[in-house]
Amino acid sequence: MPISGFPEWLPPQRMIEQRVLDRVRTTFELYGFAPLETRSVEPLDTLLSKGETSKEVYLLHRLQGGTDEEDQLGLHFDLTVPFARFVVENAGKLQFPFRRYQIQKVWRGERPQEGRYREFLQADIDVVNRDNLPFHYDTEMPLVIGDALGGLPIPRVRIQINNRKVCEGFYRGLGLSDTAQVLRVVDKLDKIGPDKVTEQLVATAGATRSQADACVELASISAEDASFADAVRKLGITDPLLDEGLDELVRVVEAAREHAPGLLVADLKIARGLDYYTGTVYETLLTGYERFGSICSGGRYDNLASSGNDRFPGVGISIGVSRMLGILFGRQALEVSRKVPTCVLVALPQEEQRAACDRTAAALRRRGIATEVAPAAAKFGKQIQYADRRGIPYVWFPGEPDTVKDIRSGEQVEADATTWQPPAADLHPAVTGA
Amino acid sequence: MPISGFPEWLPPQRMIEQRVLDRVRTTFELYGFAPLETRSVEPLDTLLSKGETSKEVYLLHRLQGGTDEEDQLGLHFDLTVPFARFVVENAGKLQFPFRRYQIQKVWRGERPQEGRYREFLQADIDVVNRDNLPFHYDTEMPLVIGDALGGLPIPRVRIQINNRKVCEGFYRGLGLSDTAQVLRVVDKLDKIGPDKVTEQLVATAGATRSQADACVELASISAEDASFADAVRKLGITDPLLDEGLDELVRVVEAAREHAPGLLVADLKIARGLDYYTGTVYETLLTGYERFGSICSGGRYDNLASSGNDRFPGVGISIGVSRMLGILFGRQALEVSRKVPTCVLVALPQEEQRAACDRTAAALRRRGIATEVAPAAAKFGKQIQYADRRGIPYVWFPGEPDTVKDIRSGEQVEADATTWQPPAADLHPAVTGA
Repeated sequence: MPISGFPEWLPPQRMIEQRVLDRVRTTFELYGFAPLETRSVEPLDTLLSKGETSKEVYLLHRLQGGTDEEDQLGLHFDLTVPFARFVVENAGKLQFPFRRYQIQKVWRGERPQEGRYREFLQADIDVVNRDNLPFHYDTEMPLVIGDALGGLPIPRVRIQINNRKVCEGFYRGLGLSDTAQVLRVVDKLDKIGPDKVTEQLVATAGATRSQADACVELASISAEDASFADAVRKLGITDPLLDEGLDELVRVVEAAREHAPGLLVADLKIARGLDYYTGTVYETLLTGYERFGSICSGGRYDNLASSGNDRFPGVGISIGVSRMLGILFGRQALEVSRKVPTCVLVALPQEEQRAACDRTAAALRRRGIATEVAPAAAKFGKQIQYADRRGIPYVWFPGEPDTVKDIRSGEQVEADATTWQPPAADLHPAVTGA
Repeated sequence: MPISGFPEWLPPQRMIEQRVLDRVRTTFELYGFAPLETRSVEPLDTLLSKGETSKEVYLLHRLQGGTDEEDQLGLHFDLTVPFARFVVENAGKLQFPFRRYQIQKVWRGERPQEGRYREFLQADIDVVNRDNLPFHYDTEMPLVIGDALGGLPIPRVRIQINNRKVCEGFYRGLGLSDTAQVLRVVDKLDKIGPDKVTEQLVATAGATRSQADACVELASISAEDASFADAVRKLGITDPLLDEGLDELVRVVEAAREHAPGLLVADLKIARGLDYYTGTVYETLLTGYERFGSICSGGRYDNLASSGNDRFPGVGISIGVSRMLGILFGRQALEVSRKVPTCVLVALPQEEQRAACDRTAAALRRRGIATEVAPAAAKFGKQIQYADRRGIPYVWFPGEPDTVKDIRSGEQVEADATTWQPPAADLHPAVTGA
């Protein structure tokens, strides 16, 4: 029986997912990110070390575990916390700045809902450095994502960015001291609306009515260019951290305008919950599917990884692959041209000819053409049906000479297994937007 | 800290692993296997449904789990049991015979040792059918594996095969009734030697001394051709199941001799523990690393998947990717030509030129050349050092005109980012045997 929150795709959907992952991975590598996988488990104290977490952790215990049970282990709930642990643990063996990508399952024991799973696939890129990480990496992250997702037959993505320093500096400049609580309340803006946010800021964050209004006003600012900074300054609040944050945010927006116009928008309501971010934060909406929330998020974290006096600041972003595909699959928004990788089915006239048919298949495979031999000798009509049900485009008939039939058009031609080539478009299953 | 049994590869090793997985996956697809992933968890009763299991299961529970806890879930310990469950659950949506491959992590809470992990990666292929599965699929499995692994820079593999029907028929023909116990004892042959096996057969399986000797004699038979069948028949035991098993085993051996000479050996001591196999069984040794045991195993299972009156017999084989690579990494038997995917580092003379350098990098990436821009403006010597430490072969110098330097040979030439192409051998990191 299906288990709520643990999605399983049928093979055609998995073929689409693989195509997405291939594109993502190839793009990450084009930007010089090295591959990494970390173990699926971490000690519970590593998972909880970043203070209060809203992520529900799955703990492991062995069915026949004795009293010698090791430290409590839990499944990781993201790829950033394990990555930070890995960097500290292996700092002596890595070259800094260290650029890595990581595509793995993560687990969260939360209530499942559409596009929210308990087991799901994430695709992360991060750059970390020892001591200090140059800011230009903050501008690079969204460009890599734009490049990776832009090459896929999915709706256009729009990356929304903000900077924690802008919010914290602004709140501080306003005279509010519990900036974490302000952020926590402002983060609910889309869910509960501005009136309730104002109310809660007054009730829980020590804000006056006019301070609360200013916070809501800040959060309403959004622009595709550096004009957002003027809008913030018009609010009349000054603070050195605010200035620093605005300068950083302007740099990211301007770099994106040059290299990928239309990809990015500065949106000052983006807060990214209570995660470990210290500066730039990213969220990403899929055009037409905005109500499902962010499908790709991340940010700058200056204090996540450290060991003694060594500090490893980083910046990263994570594509929620399962979430994105779950949403698109739910609306039949992606299609694949066949249900199997197979391009050619070799028909089997009689069981005695199997060895010869296997040789034909081997010759086709040697040239990169995915080929199956029919499961049993049968009338050709039945073999064509086998191919048709799977969307296999070609059936190969042994004979003197061999022939190959495009079962979509019905066209049948003489062919030699050592030279025949299908059109490039038929070689692999094609993934398209529906 | 490292956790025993949960291996983590450094990026160069992960690059090697990915190259192996790419080859394996491409080969599986060339044979028409469709991709599948199943969830990592199964209900405990599914995991334990195949009777006594020696696999130690990891159970999950939520850190903040309440009293509404769902059925007990455990991490899967192989990919065959989840696959069988998936087939039964989705039979109405699949086309049979159903060929799928599945490359995923599995978990076993056993004592770790070299090449034996608690978390490890498996790459499986299986074919299942409704009601009956033609035997020729048993002959296909080892050929696919030979093709997949044969294209990698690893030691030659040798697939050992046997057939449960041969063993059970032989034991029955000998007059032994507890054939499962006989198999269990014979399975220890390599570990404890023939004398102890004989002893234990007498002590625990109700065998006379001469029956026990015959069992050990059967297990000693091995041949690369059909001659093993004559050797078995010379032992003078007759039984219909034995005959059926011998005929099947001969078919697999002969098909391999035709399509992949030297790949396969019939070895009648192969038992595959107490798993769910009912006929053909496979194990695979890596030449020179035989003492580490099988790196690729599987077999025919006629009764694993069923639902009411529906039966889904199958045959499959599973590459122990982590096990194989762990052994080879432990002996530095595999190398990769650089530590990052990057082919070109664009040097940055001054920070003000970053936008221009980013454009150069973008032009190279558009043509599939993995490129990074230097992290900071620095003297060229320092930038060459950055490339050298990572094994990046080329450094690009902006100028009038631009030049590109092969830092291995020192050769530097004029170049245009929209046309320059590295030699094909440098485009991607090369994986070689050491």
